[in-house]
Amino acid sequence: MKFLHTSDWHLGRQFHNVSLLDDQAAILNQIVQYIAEHPVDALLIAGDIYDRSVPPANAIELLDHVLTTLCQDMGVPVIMIPGNHDGAARLAFGARHMRDAGLHIIANFEQMLEPVVLSSNDAGEVAFYGMPYHDPEVVRHAYQEAVHSHDEAHQLLCEKITKTFDPSQHHVLLSHCFVDGAMESESERPLSIGGSDRVNHEHFLPFDYVALGHLHQPQKKGRDSIRYSGSLMKYSFSEQHQKKGMTLVTFDQQGFVSSESIPLISPHDMRIIEGELEEIIAKAADDPRPNDYLLVRLTDKHAILDPMEKLRQVYPNVLHIEKPGMLIGMDQPVASQRLKRSEVDMFADFFQEAQQSELTPAQSEAIAAVVQELKQGDRE
Amino acid sequence: MKFLHTSDWHLGRQFHNVSLLDDQAAILNQIVQYIAEHPVDALLIAGDIYDRSVPPANAIELLDHVLTTLCQDMGVPVIMIPGNHDGAARLAFGARHMRDAGLHIIANFEQMLEPVVLSSNDAGEVAFYGMPYHDPEVVRHAYQEAVHSHDEAHQLLCEKITKTFDPSQHHVLLSHCFVDGAMESESERPLSIGGSDRVNHEHFLPFDYVALGHLHQPQKKGRDSIRYSGSLMKYSFSEQHQKKGMTLVTFDQQGFVSSESIPLISPHDMRIIEGELEEIIAKAADDPRPNDYLLVRLTDKHAILDPMEKLRQVYPNVLHIEKPGMLIGMDQPVASQRLKRSEVDMFADFFQEAQQSELTPAQSEAIAAVVQELKQGDRE
Repeated sequence: MKFLHTSDWHLGRQFHNVSLLDDQAAILNQIVQYIAEHPVDALLIAGDIYDRSVPPANAIELLDHVLTTLCQDMGVPVIMIPGNHDGAARLAFGARHMRDAGLHIIANFEQMLEPVVLSSNDAGEVAFYGMPYHDPEVVRHAYQEAVHSHDEAHQLLCEKITKTFDPSQHHVLLSHCFVDGAMESESERPLSIGGSDRVNHEHFLPFDYVALGHLHQPQKKGRDSIRYSGSLMKYSFSEQHQKKGMTLVTFDQQGFVSSESIPLISPHDMRIIEGELEEIIAKAADDPRPNDYLLVRLTDKHAILDPMEKLRQVYPNVLHIEKPGMLIGMDQPVASQRLKRSEVDMFADFFQEAQQSELTPAQSEAIAAVVQELKQGDRE
Repeated sequence: MKFLHTSDWHLGRQFHNVSLLDDQAAILNQIVQYIAEHPVDALLIAGDIYDRSVPPANAIELLDHVLTTLCQDMGVPVIMIPGNHDGAARLAFGARHMRDAGLHIIANFEQMLEPVVLSSNDAGEVAFYGMPYHDPEVVRHAYQEAVHSHDEAHQLLCEKITKTFDPSQHHVLLSHCFVDGAMESESERPLSIGGSDRVNHEHFLPFDYVALGHLHQPQKKGRDSIRYSGSLMKYSFSEQHQKKGMTLVTFDQQGFVSSESIPLISPHDMRIIEGELEEIIAKAADDPRPNDYLLVRLTDKHAILDPMEKLRQVYPNVLHIEKPGMLIGMDQPVASQRLKRSEVDMFADFFQEAQQSELTPAQSEAIAAVVQELKQGDRE
């Protein structure tokens, strides 16, 4: 038996105000092509299908198209769980109607205990369990047990699942979490503040394979069969050197045999270029990939008029410019200001995160007025 | 063959800042109960399933629960189309996976030409066609034909559908539109401005039955078999005297036989009470339904301190107070101002529609700042 493990599709993501949907569609098409040429028994998606709980309509259409192709046209079962970016209830609409069609959206604790069982001649029966992403509070509330951290939540949920194990079957788990000691990238949204989101990989030892999502860098943790597939594509410039792909997992009668990384190539790579403006522009003619998404770090020490316009004549998809050279000698009061944050500051951070651009002064003012209004409302 | 025709569920609707979801759940339960006691061959929903294109998660969960009960547990096929309040792409996610499970979401022109065919011993085969709600521009674009109005769009789409007719079958159409001459209520959102949304009922004559949605008052148009079922419940005080329900339609070998209204009763009725404050409060003790949602029209000619607090001691769900008596002699400059509307005015109307409350001065200011900002952005 062979199945593909993917995660962190983040469909509908914007990056520096650029929609990545066309790139995502091209990569999903690579997955479909791969499966057409190398049949597999299932495709797993370990959470963060969408980039946000209310995804744009064209991201929904893209997912619908891909899943219809896979499940309906090609007959490949797809098993998925919501991640911290997904809205579980939204994602799970119609889940029970779709099961018989081979689309398994595991979004609540009841479904978590009803594995999707697939069988093959070479590996017998494999039971796929999905652990939908939930905050520890939700787990505590659902089971009325003392659960205060992601680690305790995972311990409890893994116990609930392993109790249902049929020893004649192999067992695979999909989970969306941060395994302690694993490597972060800049494009993951923290699950909780202050490090209490870390989960010990030992909870996963009873499983033959654990298909993890959340961290965007492909990696194993603890042993070969506890793995992050990594995200569909690069979602931050800090990932410029990561190799993105999906993980092809092979099982036999004894269970896990091997995992192999199958590369996925985005039409636009995401890269950082550093140097002086003139030098970067001069070298651009020899760059084989001028259409990549670029962060340019200008090392010039003097002010430059409209560097973005100049750069975009050779690199049309420069998305951001940093000028570390210009900061020498400047005060950087940012850190000290962070200690006492107003609502408007926090909203500005959120806006920056969500929109990849800063609030204009007029927008700041408008938000300040709304916050003031809400505070007055609270007092009244 | 018997099927139930419903429309305009508007799940997730807020009314004067009160969520109607519990009432909607209770009424949907009446539908399930009715079908449990009086089996039918199908349930139709002629659009406006949700109240808005991005419905709240608990409305999605309610719909999922009801459809799972009907299709999965009770084996009753459900056929639905999006209305002008629904987001067609969002509603249609997974549609192809759900067909075999008996849930038919007809949301595009391709699906429109593939009827859901049900058969029974007493009526033979009945083909159910759904015409998803679309603006005329979308129809024009899809078929590259001169379509400028809802009427022309319906004419074209009905022609496309009737061309696929199998004469051995009976034909039912679901459509979400405003049939010319039908009666409006205050809770419908206009399909387009200035009356160009009206559709001639004659386009529908080739069908044995037409299950209409959009208008909230149950009514027939043109002939007995072209009908609005009306909305699930009252969605404005102007509907206080309407009888809400669903339409039970019976077919035999000759096609349409009869339609019958099956009442649906909301836990809270929606009523208008008029009179002087003291008089209303005195009579309240004898009111058999003190928990209804009320609009109170106070006819007192003098100012009253906090009438809402006084009224809510006897009628806890007073949602709005009007004081026509207080307006005598006051200027009413509203109508003349309507001629020239600013963006802020239009947003204020939208806010009033969506939130059932007026913008505060600070909110108005904040919106004005944002509009100003956007206009500056456009010019730059």
